[in-house]
Amino acid sequence: MNFKQLATKYKTPLYVYNLDYMSERYKELKEAFKGRKSILAYAVKANSNLSVVKHFGDLGSGADCVSIGEVRRALLAGIPPYKVIFSGVGKSDDEIREAILSDILYINVESEAELFRVEQIAKELGSVSRISVRVNPNIDPKTHPYISTGLHDNKFGVDIDSAKRMYVLAKNSTALDPVGIHFHIGSQLTHLEPIYESAVIVADMVRSLLAIDIELKFFDIGGGLGVTYDKEVTIKPYDYAQAILGAIKGLDLTIICEPGRFLTANAGYFLTKVLYEKQNGDKKFVVVDGAMNDLLRPSLYNAYHKIEALVEDKSKTKVVDVVGPVCESGDFFAKNYELPEVKRNDLLIIHSAGAYGFGMGSNYNTRGRSAEVAVKGGEDRLIREREEFEDIIALEKEFI
Amino acid sequence: MNFKQLATKYKTPLYVYNLDYMSERYKELKEAFKGRKSILAYAVKANSNLSVVKHFGDLGSGADCVSIGEVRRALLAGIPPYKVIFSGVGKSDDEIREAILSDILYINVESEAELFRVEQIAKELGSVSRISVRVNPNIDPKTHPYISTGLHDNKFGVDIDSAKRMYVLAKNSTALDPVGIHFHIGSQLTHLEPIYESAVIVADMVRSLLAIDIELKFFDIGGGLGVTYDKEVTIKPYDYAQAILGAIKGLDLTIICEPGRFLTANAGYFLTKVLYEKQNGDKKFVVVDGAMNDLLRPSLYNAYHKIEALVEDKSKTKVVDVVGPVCESGDFFAKNYELPEVKRNDLLIIHSAGAYGFGMGSNYNTRGRSAEVAVKGGEDRLIREREEFEDIIALEKEFI
Repeated sequence: MNFKQLATKYKTPLYVYNLDYMSERYKELKEAFKGRKSILAYAVKANSNLSVVKHFGDLGSGADCVSIGEVRRALLAGIPPYKVIFSGVGKSDDEIREAILSDILYINVESEAELFRVEQIAKELGSVSRISVRVNPNIDPKTHPYISTGLHDNKFGVDIDSAKRMYVLAKNSTALDPVGIHFHIGSQLTHLEPIYESAVIVADMVRSLLAIDIELKFFDIGGGLGVTYDKEVTIKPYDYAQAILGAIKGLDLTIICEPGRFLTANAGYFLTKVLYEKQNGDKKFVVVDGAMNDLLRPSLYNAYHKIEALVEDKSKTKVVDVVGPVCESGDFFAKNYELPEVKRNDLLIIHSAGAYGFGMGSNYNTRGRSAEVAVKGGEDRLIREREEFEDIIALEKEFI
Repeated sequence: MNFKQLATKYKTPLYVYNLDYMSERYKELKEAFKGRKSILAYAVKANSNLSVVKHFGDLGSGADCVSIGEVRRALLAGIPPYKVIFSGVGKSDDEIREAILSDILYINVESEAELFRVEQIAKELGSVSRISVRVNPNIDPKTHPYISTGLHDNKFGVDIDSAKRMYVLAKNSTALDPVGIHFHIGSQLTHLEPIYESAVIVADMVRSLLAIDIELKFFDIGGGLGVTYDKEVTIKPYDYAQAILGAIKGLDLTIICEPGRFLTANAGYFLTKVLYEKQNGDKKFVVVDGAMNDLLRPSLYNAYHKIEALVEDKSKTKVVDVVGPVCESGDFFAKNYELPEVKRNDLLIIHSAGAYGFGMGSNYNTRGRSAEVAVKGGEDRLIREREEFEDIIALEKEFI
């Protein structure tokens, strides 16, 4: 990856994605489930650029979507409706209606109240809606509280008993077709045990539903596989698949897996240029042209991102805060980070920026969002234009 | 404010701003400085909607800007260049060039390295750039670490000694004209003492510059006046002004004050509709149609926002988490909040949403940003259209 050339060609700040790396990761995970029916449904929220979604679609991927906007992205990118899943705790009536009309694989239902809405809307449409229920197995995934989703004090899914009631209700409804069961206990998971425990709980539920003649087709294990940002030891796809397969032994189910971060995080780089060096008291700062409006994870989750300085002489280092131009102290990429000596216009590469990077971007401080570039087989191409001032004010200009 | 009517007319989620309240706050603060030359320069980052900026401009306000995008907003909104200030730790060459060419009041310089850039660019343009130096007085403002900016371990400003060197340098440069001095120790300040102490330090510096024939015109006290989100006791504008006036006694200076949150926070309301109620274990959730992509403050700063349920019967209450549809546990507006019993389609009003609300909004989870509405003299009007799917993908669609 010739970052310097890319930075010169497309300017900074800039997101760059290695599509070949995404392909490798996709194939590695798909391969782990060989011998079983499986669909990898890419979690669009991780990196929702249309060209990235299309890339996964071309590899055979489905799409896990959490808004009707994401469903539209998936369909626009060419993913067939029968591989599209719609999840999320807060689906509006309009979203449910469009999802049913789009004839997607199923809607992941997250509450009893939602089940009634889906039924009602399907009836109004004279349709039958395929659904799965998201079960909250009450297992601690051992990850950051903001991305932990499988405990009862999280808003996601329903407990086992509610889920059972919902399946019976769905089975008895003329407008609902219960086809799957779903769980997802969190994101950036690095421990296999909680996933296995959850899978066992949910597989038991599938068996007890079978006993009352509710036969599910899809065992949706969610996503959440962790990646290495720093020194995390991650779960191997093979071990992951074996654990899942072990849990569903004897059941005839198609596995749905919804990887997002796993496929994209380490395929992405955020390129930013040094604007200034400054020192306040004992504290040294490297001020760069990217900011929290481009990459929020350090500020929001206190997340670690490896930072590489593209300088020739790396022998002398300094401990610095790498900060952006946004006017708050929360605007930083790293604190007390050991970096080679850098000067104005040197390029910094912020690693692991392919997931939850651009997608969480904002126009805070009236900063346009970065351009996005994809690299595949050594060729680079723009996949999203840099946002200009005129784009930012487009929806408000006429009202001034 | 007829929130129900507004929600029906413009749909939810929705930002609503009371411009009359903004006027009152502006006049109250301006009045506090009467008898002294003063400019209130609205801190555009707090709420950068063009119609809001224009509203303050019409009242006579200047603009404190932290990016060239904000400078453009201010000028587009009709604020005269001689009332526009450009601050920020990471100004790019292009931004500095455009600021000089726009002939704004001055550039607030935040490091020695930046001073050299401004000088260099002014020289290239054959121009003289008016500047002020942001001094970091090393005073603890007693606020949230992310919005605290006046300590040496913050990236902002320069220490007193560096500032002195910079003024001498500027004085001796043909391309720089040092006209002001600036400090800003943080945001949401509720203690007067740190502001006073900072003002005294900076005023002493003005005197010592006078002694070496550097005569400044503008004493820029920044912004940061706190507001009441919950039960905070705030600083009275009169006391604030008196403290500042006390500090600069005997000096002939125009006071520049840069209020943002103070003018807008409690003028704004975020309207969101109940989608579902759900219970997981003992935990109760109210799922609404607004989310962290609309209002990030609870998630990013753990900020408190008062939530009002527009229901007739408020006698029965429940302790709930108010959460949005975004797929992470960090997507919440309040946790363990006592709310009257609500049902589907009831309206919730999230208070104090006029500052750092819409402006930090994103398209996370491919959610379009809310519409914005202004109310003035009982009349409401749209000031920014709701963002639709086509708007979100506009810059990437052609590359798919």
